[in-house]
Amino acid sequence: MKHIIESQQFKVPRIMDLFERTNFMKKVVARGGTMDYQNKIMASLFYSPSTRTRFSFESAMYRLGGKVLTTEQAREFSSEIKDERLEDTIRIIGNYCDVIVLRHHQVGGAKKAAEVSATSIINAGDGSGGQHPTQALLDLYTIHNECHTVDGLSVAFIGALDNGRTARSLAYLLSKFDRVKLYFIAPDELQIKPDILAHLDEHNINYELTNSTKGILSKVDVLYVTRMDRERLQRKNVKLEEYNITPSVLKQLNKKARILHPLPRSVEISPEVDQDPRAAYFRQTENGLYLRMALLSMIFDGD
Amino acid sequence: MKHIIESQQFKVPRIMDLFERTNFMKKVVARGGTMDYQNKIMASLFYSPSTRTRFSFESAMYRLGGKVLTTEQAREFSSEIKDERLEDTIRIIGNYCDVIVLRHHQVGGAKKAAEVSATSIINAGDGSGGQHPTQALLDLYTIHNECHTVDGLSVAFIGALDNGRTARSLAYLLSKFDRVKLYFIAPDELQIKPDILAHLDEHNINYELTNSTKGILSKVDVLYVTRMDRERLQRKNVKLEEYNITPSVLKQLNKKARILHPLPRSVEISPEVDQDPRAAYFRQTENGLYLRMALLSMIFDGD
Amino acid sequence: MKHIIESQQFKVPRIMDLFERTNFMKKVVARGGTMDYQNKIMASLFYSPSTRTRFSFESAMYRLGGKVLTTEQAREFSSEIKDERLEDTIRIIGNYCDVIVLRHHQVGGAKKAAEVSATSIINAGDGSGGQHPTQALLDLYTIHNECHTVDGLSVAFIGALDNGRTARSLAYLLSKFDRVKLYFIAPDELQIKPDILAHLDEHNINYELTNSTKGILSKVDVLYVTRMDRERLQRKNVKLEEYNITPSVLKQLNKKARILHPLPRSVEISPEVDQDPRAAYFRQTENGLYLRMALLSMIFDGD
Repeated sequence: MKHIIESQQFKVPRIMDLFERTNFMKKVVARGGTMDYQNKIMASLFYSPSTRTRFSFESAMYRLGGKVLTTEQAREFSSEIKDERLEDTIRIIGNYCDVIVLRHHQVGGAKKAAEVSATSIINAGDGSGGQHPTQALLDLYTIHNECHTVDGLSVAFIGALDNGRTARSLAYLLSKFDRVKLYFIAPDELQIKPDILAHLDEHNINYELTNSTKGILSKVDVLYVTRMDRERLQRKNVKLEEYNITPSVLKQLNKKARILHPLPRSVEISPEVDQDPRAAYFRQTENGLYLRMALLSMIFDGD
Repeated sequence: MKHIIESQQFKVPRIMDLFERTNFMKKVVARGGTMDYQNKIMASLFYSPSTRTRFSFESAMYRLGGKVLTTEQAREFSSEIKDERLEDTIRIIGNYCDVIVLRHHQVGGAKKAAEVSATSIINAGDGSGGQHPTQALLDLYTIHNECHTVDGLSVAFIGALDNGRTARSLAYLLSKFDRVKLYFIAPDELQIKPDILAHLDEHNINYELTNSTKGILSKVDVLYVTRMDRERLQRKNVKLEEYNITPSVLKQLNKKARILHPLPRSVEISPEVDQDPRAAYFRQTENGLYLRMALLSMIFDGD
Repeated sequence: MKHIIESQQFKVPRIMDLFERTNFMKKVVARGGTMDYQNKIMASLFYSPSTRTRFSFESAMYRLGGKVLTTEQAREFSSEIKDERLEDTIRIIGNYCDVIVLRHHQVGGAKKAAEVSATSIINAGDGSGGQHPTQALLDLYTIHNECHTVDGLSVAFIGALDNGRTARSLAYLLSKFDRVKLYFIAPDELQIKPDILAHLDEHNINYELTNSTKGILSKVDVLYVTRMDRERLQRKNVKLEEYNITPSVLKQLNKKARILHPLPRSVEISPEVDQDPRAAYFRQTENGLYLRMALLSMIFDGD
């Protein structure tokens, strides 16, 4: 595992190894410790800003004992010339670090970078509709941790699913497990794209598409809520309220279910929901730290 | 002391403890040493940019041996959605660090953050007219260090005092000491606000408001100069020159007085004044480092 | 050596010492080690953004074991006032670190900073047409490393040489060596400026100015290519193609020659050229890391 580019590259045994390592990192942090990677340098190369994801990776690197080079906005600040090829940037910056965490504004950016890079690349999101594999892994880890299994689970995705990088990446991962059932709840205009459905068909995964939460919420183990872009929805005349998670929606939700969200949220989940024990999204964001520690350490160890 | 939100929260014995710890940190840095906090992470979350304050905190954290997550401009760069609630951001970022240094553009931002945060919050300035308690503490430390006491001192504030976060915060702190006398020198339009005066009345603090330095400069122990916003003053037709500290003003100033300024300065103090031994503002900015080391270490130690 | 402001300040014996130290640093990094400067702090104070140069310095500091304060865009983010004097900023930030790496947008910025600074200043580029001494030193190191000598070499500069900070700085350095021969290949409008030629005359350096690569490429040991600003050239009606390095140009180039470029490149060198063993520019950028480690350590050691 040199580069981390897309969810599909992970096989189940590797995922289970990763989750064990993640559990271990959780314990290290809980006891206020650090790992022994003080000679390692990570570069955060973010062409689209995301303080949250950047801090999650950088904190992981610090908890491992390592060091961090960072740019908040590489597109604006990178250099005096505006047309430098990504391949050149990567080959240069690769000299200065042991791993590059790349968020790029174009789909395929991370793959292009990996093709020329002697230094490990981690895709931290590439373009709208691209991938965000470490998010998908931490989502899956949270599901595994909260439900104690992945096999046999029913997972509903709700929100703007067409360009939803996180929903797409997680669906790829879930398709590797046995007897999972997926629901995609979205207005027609924002439904999950056919390429994902084709992938699910190929892997014999059961799924349903629907416009409404009716009859579904009582059946699912996991409700994965994704961001709704207000402006975009208004242009499409979608009634936002039908896809918002409020205390009244909670009443229909299975008592043992878990609510996940990649965060940041906009209006999709009311703050009142946070108090419900089924609301797992703040635990999910915390898990991101441990999972990224595990991933980085696997890369450094050459595992 | 979990959070540092406003000057008022500090009582005199705590302040004196803090100043002793600050003296200790000064010695650590002087001998080129570091403290033992290498497993601690500080996050600089600046919604309004301030390289100076940010570097002061981050250097303090490094001299303690710790690590730093940083954003120069969280408002612009934080995430793909523009309407995330501060409470969400704080709860997420709190997972990635042991203390959050928050500069927020709205008065009350730090307080709002502290209400939901399991991680310590330090207010590094909240809005125009809000507070900046660590600045006030370093100002007070400098006064104490230069004058060897605070009780019984005469302190004159000069400049645009109405929205002056630093003058306001320092006035709160000074009101805790015995027999201090305060002068507020400003054009009527920019005078210190009634809420501060009410607070001083409550604490039986002697003060005078005036438009002019005449007759005052020979009497004060400390002249605290604050920033004058040129454009704003021009709109108000204020004659800037009357409030500028120049070599000729120095002649009227008490021989043992000290000149403080939170820096950065604009035109309020001529560069020629820097050579005068009474000009203490560069020593003041240096003290910021030691005082912030002391504050951070108190938080980490749970003191 | 307290400050590093311009190429001219380095004498040949000092340069040779520096290159030996650079070789040593290369070995330290190759074996995955770090040096022992963990109590040192470097501040990157960049008024014009350059992720590449910034990362190169910051990585050097980390490989030395030290810590880094950083700003990507000090001009935009530094403070609430826009007219602060650089001298004030430097005196304040000098309190928070052991060395300031300054990229300033005005020619002479670094010199102005050094005049007031108790803390070491390294010029990381000052204005268009100013200097960039650490780049020149790493260029020279690369030449020395690839050609095993500097004395007696023929070096051709090609591109927009009039404002080329790197070409100018390197010409100053080369003039200190014996029997070097320089060629300046550029359209008349963009030719190297008379001040450099006067300096070369003073040091009895042989040089030629020309518009074309014809007859020169077979004779040179080093071809130093610099950035061509497309828009600027179009305004001047320069035929870009004549100054681009393509596979067909390579055929005319001396078999033992080396191609250098400060990077980032625009269109001046086709990506196909990268495979040629004479293309040394990626090795050159890697050398920047080791050379900056050597420079920083010399400053910390007071050498």
